[in-house]
Amino acid sequence: MVDQRLCIAGLGLMGGSLALALKGKTRQIIGVDRHAATRQQALADGAVDVVTKDLASGVAEADLVILATPVRTILSILRELPALRPDGCLVFDMGSTKLAINEAMSALPESFAALGGHPMCGKETAGYGAADADLFRDKTFILTRNQRSTEAVEEIILAMLAEIGANPLFLSAEHHDQLVATVSHLPYLLSAALMRFASAQEDPALWQTSASGFRDVSRLAGSDPHMLLDILLTNKTVVLEQLEAYSGELAAVKQLLAEEDEEALADWLSSAQRQYIGYRQAKKALESDNS
Amino acid sequence: MVDQRLCIAGLGLMGGSLALALKGKTRQIIGVDRHAATRQQALADGAVDVVTKDLASGVAEADLVILATPVRTILSILRELPALRPDGCLVFDMGSTKLAINEAMSALPESFAALGGHPMCGKETAGYGAADADLFRDKTFILTRNQRSTEAVEEIILAMLAEIGANPLFLSAEHHDQLVATVSHLPYLLSAALMRFASAQEDPALWQTSASGFRDVSRLAGSDPHMLLDILLTNKTVVLEQLEAYSGELAAVKQLLAEEDEEALADWLSSAQRQYIGYRQAKKALESDNS
Repeated sequence: MVDQRLCIAGLGLMGGSLALALKGKTRQIIGVDRHAATRQQALADGAVDVVTKDLASGVAEADLVILATPVRTILSILRELPALRPDGCLVFDMGSTKLAINEAMSALPESFAALGGHPMCGKETAGYGAADADLFRDKTFILTRNQRSTEAVEEIILAMLAEIGANPLFLSAEHHDQLVATVSHLPYLLSAALMRFASAQEDPALWQTSASGFRDVSRLAGSDPHMLLDILLTNKTVVLEQLEAYSGELAAVKQLLAEEDEEALADWLSSAQRQYIGYRQAKKALESDNS
Repeated sequence: MVDQRLCIAGLGLMGGSLALALKGKTRQIIGVDRHAATRQQALADGAVDVVTKDLASGVAEADLVILATPVRTILSILRELPALRPDGCLVFDMGSTKLAINEAMSALPESFAALGGHPMCGKETAGYGAADADLFRDKTFILTRNQRSTEAVEEIILAMLAEIGANPLFLSAEHHDQLVATVSHLPYLLSAALMRFASAQEDPALWQTSASGFRDVSRLAGSDPHMLLDILLTNKTVVLEQLEAYSGELAAVKQLLAEEDEEALADWLSSAQRQYIGYRQAKKALESDNS
């Protein structure tokens, strides 16, 4: 039981799933969303107790405000919050990048206590329609501290993660943004670039020929572009650095192939397979640790 | 019922699955494989009626020889075949690239009748252990004609594909090699390069942070490097061209991000999502046509 009155701003995949996961496990959930259909559906599902499209009235009575919108909307709400809540409150967020958000949280008045969060789960389908009460179960939920983090807010958030079955992992915001660039932002760009490259060929036989390999590598291209735009712009430096380094890896294999350097090419391919097997084994070990 | 005596050379994922799919539906299957454990297991499963490690004795009595080894082994067997079978026979293959194989088939003596094939299905796990009688069901099976293709061999292969539930699609070898570079070889290289890039960071928190997005984009990195080496070397020109064009796509998005050209970046992301949705819809329409 989370003994707080929550306001969740943004009832999309993340906010909607959190509301569903906490249904009946908290004192009250106030849902804020700009889409009338989402508000109605969340209310009908009992995911939230009260809905409003007005952020000011949504946060007015809340003990804990949870920001579950795209990153740049989170940043703008954090700038508004001191005026909306001169008395301060607890703040948590579920944004996909953490450095800019943690800086904005650190700049809140001392009447606020704030913690950054990012659940490592997702679907390529966005919106409340894809929300799922079990989305966070057994998944890593990264937490990032800032200058407004207190033991009290950490305790409440850890209790909430325990309720939704997520595994907390504290990281610095810088470290988080590096890691997610590698496991999420870069893979997304590779996937989207592949989709654009393939579509540009306008070959009617292409989809008949495609199978599970193409499907898997291209899946992230279906991600919400609005959310991705915020992610890329708020993690620009890291993403550009990693794109550069990755392009070097591609250029290296291109040269091995061009030169038909069979031995070096075989090593390149084999090491990728070995690393993949190592990664899958590490994932399995983590999953059995958590179960 | 395929009324021929078959010799399947190579009882890996593809050859093993074909043997299992044709079990009891053909006069006889002779399996050739260099691994004793694979031969024993295929025999124990009843996937094949006879096994041998000796290609010459395997092909000696066969009406139809099916080559299911990596591409360059197929090419080497095609060079040996006229000496092993001076009387000629029917030849089919399941190699992953088709231009070099079709040229080698065209060079066979006129006593041979030959057709190229490539099933568009796969797993990242290679070998007989991953073989599955249903691997080809409802999947596209590309067929490529060469100068030794006859109506007779086409009829037999089409009957065989009907038995295993695959959907035949005739394409030129050149067209095939272009298409699979886009839907398979390039995605593989992107996946393997991502795996290498991520592993090079040696960050113990990386796998804890990774979720389904990274898993899907990296899955192809687990593919059999021996098979991939043959694929890349026998489709080198096309793969290099596509790597070049793809790198241009990555460089373009990198520049949009570096310049924070928000409008153009949003367009780039949105078109990738639209194309992904179009591709999934096209796949669904193809699947319902075939069912």
